[in-house]
Amino acid sequence: MKKAPVYRNIKVNGFLFAGICSGIKKTGKKDLALVFSEVPSVTVGLFTTNNIKAAPVKLAIKRLNGRKKCQAIIINSGNANACTGQEGLKNANAMIVATAEKLGISPDLVQVSSTGVIGEQLPINKIRQSIPGLVRKLSPYSLTDAADAIMTTDSFPKAIRKKVKIGSKTGTIAGIAKGAGMICPNMATMLCYILTDISISHRLLEHDLNDAVNRSFNRLTVDNDMSTNDSVFVMANGMLGNDAITAGSADDEAFKNALQEITYDLAKMIARDGEGATKLIEVVIKGARSVADADRVARAISGSMLVKTAVYGNDPNWGRIMAAVGYSGVKIRENKIDIYIGRVKVVSKGAGTNKQKQAARGLQDKTVVITVDLGAGDKMVRAISCDLTEKYIAINAEYRT
Amino acid sequence: MKKAPVYRNIKVNGFLFAGICSGIKKTGKKDLALVFSEVPSVTVGLFTTNNIKAAPVKLAIKRLNGRKKCQAIIINSGNANACTGQEGLKNANAMIVATAEKLGISPDLVQVSSTGVIGEQLPINKIRQSIPGLVRKLSPYSLTDAADAIMTTDSFPKAIRKKVKIGSKTGTIAGIAKGAGMICPNMATMLCYILTDISISHRLLEHDLNDAVNRSFNRLTVDNDMSTNDSVFVMANGMLGNDAITAGSADDEAFKNALQEITYDLAKMIARDGEGATKLIEVVIKGARSVADADRVARAISGSMLVKTAVYGNDPNWGRIMAAVGYSGVKIRENKIDIYIGRVKVVSKGAGTNKQKQAARGLQDKTVVITVDLGAGDKMVRAISCDLTEKYIAINAEYRT
Repeated sequence: MKKAPVYRNIKVNGFLFAGICSGIKKTGKKDLALVFSEVPSVTVGLFTTNNIKAAPVKLAIKRLNGRKKCQAIIINSGNANACTGQEGLKNANAMIVATAEKLGISPDLVQVSSTGVIGEQLPINKIRQSIPGLVRKLSPYSLTDAADAIMTTDSFPKAIRKKVKIGSKTGTIAGIAKGAGMICPNMATMLCYILTDISISHRLLEHDLNDAVNRSFNRLTVDNDMSTNDSVFVMANGMLGNDAITAGSADDEAFKNALQEITYDLAKMIARDGEGATKLIEVVIKGARSVADADRVARAISGSMLVKTAVYGNDPNWGRIMAAVGYSGVKIRENKIDIYIGRVKVVSKGAGTNKQKQAARGLQDKTVVITVDLGAGDKMVRAISCDLTEKYIAINAEYRT
Repeated sequence: MKKAPVYRNIKVNGFLFAGICSGIKKTGKKDLALVFSEVPSVTVGLFTTNNIKAAPVKLAIKRLNGRKKCQAIIINSGNANACTGQEGLKNANAMIVATAEKLGISPDLVQVSSTGVIGEQLPINKIRQSIPGLVRKLSPYSLTDAADAIMTTDSFPKAIRKKVKIGSKTGTIAGIAKGAGMICPNMATMLCYILTDISISHRLLEHDLNDAVNRSFNRLTVDNDMSTNDSVFVMANGMLGNDAITAGSADDEAFKNALQEITYDLAKMIARDGEGATKLIEVVIKGARSVADADRVARAISGSMLVKTAVYGNDPNWGRIMAAVGYSGVKIRENKIDIYIGRVKVVSKGAGTNKQKQAARGLQDKTVVITVDLGAGDKMVRAISCDLTEKYIAINAEYRT
């Protein structure tokens, strides 16, 4: 089911990209990426809520606090630089300094991310030696090289682009991401970099990104584990030359929608490429009393191993969905609940409709939509998940060995 | 790794048991069990906290409320009688009435449990027709037949017995249970029946059972899913002839300890027999500020799919344990944490000790103990889990098909 990315030659005004192999990964695959803007960009970051944070995440939180611009982000895969103590912080900082030096900009304008195995020190000399070559490779057409270089167990690079009309001009928003495992609500082992030439204030960008992430990565579940490294960055370099977008304007509406589409589509790509996954699952909760209620039910269903394996096995076992609704903790009335698998109504007012056969056919699709109507209100939430297969186990039982 | 039960001919003064095939299961395996006491017994029940409750659970909660005695419990496997509406309640009641009639006792003294597939009506006629044969089979030596008949995807029946000195007499506590899948903290698809000839008040029994279940079944995780049917019953028929145990006495201490051992050992059997499991995992959290903190950390680790698959793959990937500690939500200091896999210290003060090789050897045992010392206090908790394998997926992807 794995799919190559749709976009190949994504270009965003003023941004250059590179992705190379520095030797962190023993496989010889790309493991070092660089995103660079010709001018300092308004930058916002969102990070894991795990109490154990990787060194680069600790640095980024501290360094973005109060500082609102950034011009370059260096990212390595193959090593998370997490649980690495003072040496880890020193190494993360060394990546920043070496990158800034080679680019000829202030280290204040450089950020760093890492992803991979926890608890091992970075091979910092290899990385330092590779930075000149990485900078030499910078090109406006190399976004997918960067997307390649941030992958860990991902089976395909994830990149996407949207064009947005801002006044009389047409801006671009592009994004790359990595995911695959250890993904759970609240963006676990997920890295995402979104780049735009549209001019927008730091405050509004922060607001719009929060909103977009809440509706996408924060409602994405692969295996309920949350990583130490999750990070989402947005850089807006303003090179489109538009008047900076203001809150509540039509331009803001267009920008916000595009940003939401970008994050939701990347979240879907991550689920589709979930470790071992063969199917994308979309969980739609309707008729909830509140968004918070809908959210809890959506998380219970999208995180249920029994629901995920049933989807994998083409088994329209709605009892497992019902049980997840029940243990979500949300107050429900059993005899108000309708459940659909695809378009087939398998539960009506809490009771089975004996349409398992039709529902089983729908389960063979590569995208399975499970809809639950709680019959208690008018609030709705959409969450993203994937099926759980033998291959997930094989990948994670053998990750390091 | 699956093991046959240790105890074969368990006898508890005044209790009779039976287990037969009534035809609910299409495989021809036993699916109907009866537990009967010659005299009405003090009875306590604890049930699933899932908001969607099976019909027999709804009935039991209602019928045990205020009524403190019971003499017989009829249990079927193969069908959960959950999400079955009014007809389900009628059928559960019909099982009670038919059993009471055949035993010649009041229906008020009969309870019912079900386990199996959700959303299908019970084949009530088959069950009714089988009850006379079930009653005829009652014998003091048939506890393991009953343990057999309550199994679903379990690979072996779970039964255990302890002798307890109460004053100058020796009482017996025996228990049977079923588990296998859909098990998570708060006793999911788990049925357990504990029988004793010791005399104890309803109030004290309730207190002691709550305590025992909190330390065992409520700290047991197979797959984080919680069922609609979980039930634990204790029947105390007093036929030992002891003076009823009083709270705080030495007898109560002995009784409580034995009850805790019974529930903990049954919980371990359930984990060992987790769907597809090859290893039992015990998670020990030490040095916590509070029991609640220790409990949250224990649940995060014992529920982590990445930790479970790492144990399966003999991969001493302590980073996954660390990440789970971090996302448990408990405030921790990274540089205070020690982690042991078996007896090997893999993390000291938050940093790896490079003892992966030794730790990997320990992971090959059939029981793996993961110990985390949070270095924040003196509270401790012990939780039970099992590894996650390809077979879990195969079992659950093909459960009904």
